[in-house]
Amino acid sequence: MPRPLIITSPANPRLKGLVALRRRRTREQERRTLVEGYEELGLALDAGVVPEELYFCPDLMGDQARAGDLVERAGGLGADLVQLSRAAFEKVAYREGPDGFLAVVGTVDRRCADMGLPPDPLILVCEGVEKPGNLGAMLRTADAAGVDAVIAADPVTDWGNPNTVRASKGTVFSVPLASDSSAGTVDWLAEHGIPLVAAIPDTGTMHTQVDYRGPVAIAVGAEKTGLTEAVIAAATHRVRIPMVGRANSLNVATSAAIIVYEAVRQRG
Amino acid sequence: MPRPLIITSPANPRLKGLVALRRRRTREQERRTLVEGYEELGLALDAGVVPEELYFCPDLMGDQARAGDLVERAGGLGADLVQLSRAAFEKVAYREGPDGFLAVVGTVDRRCADMGLPPDPLILVCEGVEKPGNLGAMLRTADAAGVDAVIAADPVTDWGNPNTVRASKGTVFSVPLASDSSAGTVDWLAEHGIPLVAAIPDTGTMHTQVDYRGPVAIAVGAEKTGLTEAVIAAATHRVRIPMVGRANSLNVATSAAIIVYEAVRQRG
Repeated sequence: MPRPLIITSPANPRLKGLVALRRRRTREQERRTLVEGYEELGLALDAGVVPEELYFCPDLMGDQARAGDLVERAGGLGADLVQLSRAAFEKVAYREGPDGFLAVVGTVDRRCADMGLPPDPLILVCEGVEKPGNLGAMLRTADAAGVDAVIAADPVTDWGNPNTVRASKGTVFSVPLASDSSAGTVDWLAEHGIPLVAAIPDTGTMHTQVDYRGPVAIAVGAEKTGLTEAVIAAATHRVRIPMVGRANSLNVATSAAIIVYEAVRQRG
Repeated sequence: MPRPLIITSPANPRLKGLVALRRRRTREQERRTLVEGYEELGLALDAGVVPEELYFCPDLMGDQARAGDLVERAGGLGADLVQLSRAAFEKVAYREGPDGFLAVVGTVDRRCADMGLPPDPLILVCEGVEKPGNLGAMLRTADAAGVDAVIAADPVTDWGNPNTVRASKGTVFSVPLASDSSAGTVDWLAEHGIPLVAAIPDTGTMHTQVDYRGPVAIAVGAEKTGLTEAVIAAATHRVRIPMVGRANSLNVATSAAIIVYEAVRQRG
């Protein structure tokens, strides 16, 4: 393994490029994003990600032997290794309490049309979702439930957002995903003959009363605004999750999990 | 309505008492906690909470008429009204981008033995949960699903944590809840003849394969450690949520939602 480049000055211009990746526009132009933290990077590597660059800071690392193993593993995959001083690392870290690992990886985003699908796919569509934490949580659920694809329709945030990556616990690199316009998503589902089940608050049909066996897509919308009219109009079934409480709203990722797992139950 | 007290100096000693309520120990001694924000306070009032004190800052409020209505509503319920300068409010606010509302309310915590229960209760037990956001999310789910009581067993955080209050969207004030030791919780369930379904990762029984009709408690544990041996040993049924993915762990609040809604489905 080649010796790492060493950067000690926080003013080094290479570090500016890392900070720029916190902006969605830069991520989309460069098709690259950041993975910060020992655990997250390990999950990304486990999912087959080949990092382009790994910035690490021995002064911030916990268990030096384990940490060294991960640096070697990334180097062995071909990542450029760059060792940073504490001051330099703290400039590029975006988490509180950084642990000395920050990698640059390619983003995994694509359009619906670029995805392959198995027979009878189970698909989750989340429209207009704002919070990276919710996108990440939906990916964890999709991973656990064996969802075949997750589509962010007209998303307000992006799959490459470092907080999405973090909340996904590495599943952003293993679950097939796409982002597309809502119209493009609906058209693509129709072209492939995939029925669409839309979660809405006001319908008499419960989410447990439709048949999820065979190909199916489940669509959930952002908490405040819900699904758009276009998606609701395109739906084969409109369902609601029964709610009896005062607050009368489930978190969007929770709603997705409840319906997805009802589908898992039926698909047996 | 009496004219509010006005505090302009951030050094006013009364403000120190508010900051102290961010500490769990102070909350538990005083049996009081903080509710910050227009929306959260409105939800608390809707749930029947009578605030002891309301600190408000006209300079930070958005829609002055709506904001004024909420101040009047709290004052009408008997809350002490205290108007703060911007500098004083920013000292006591714990959220980024404060909107000029901070109330002191009594905590709603109690032991299992102090709770009343309807016939055939559906109970959620969460053991050892660390993150206030997860406790709050479980309350939202419990509210929506009509869970009769939520018990935090040996919790690492508390129901009064301002972040629990916030994540719960006001449901911390409407859903019956308790905190107790794990041993006390298990004993109390046994005394009342309430079967316990424990979610664990390694069992052949799926969460959809047990009967949740009649009285039942569903127990979930913290993501890293899971349920303790004592709770698992006391369980009538041990179930797992089917997981096929790489990350192999659902968020604890998501797991709770999936099992609780399977119970709702069966209880129909």
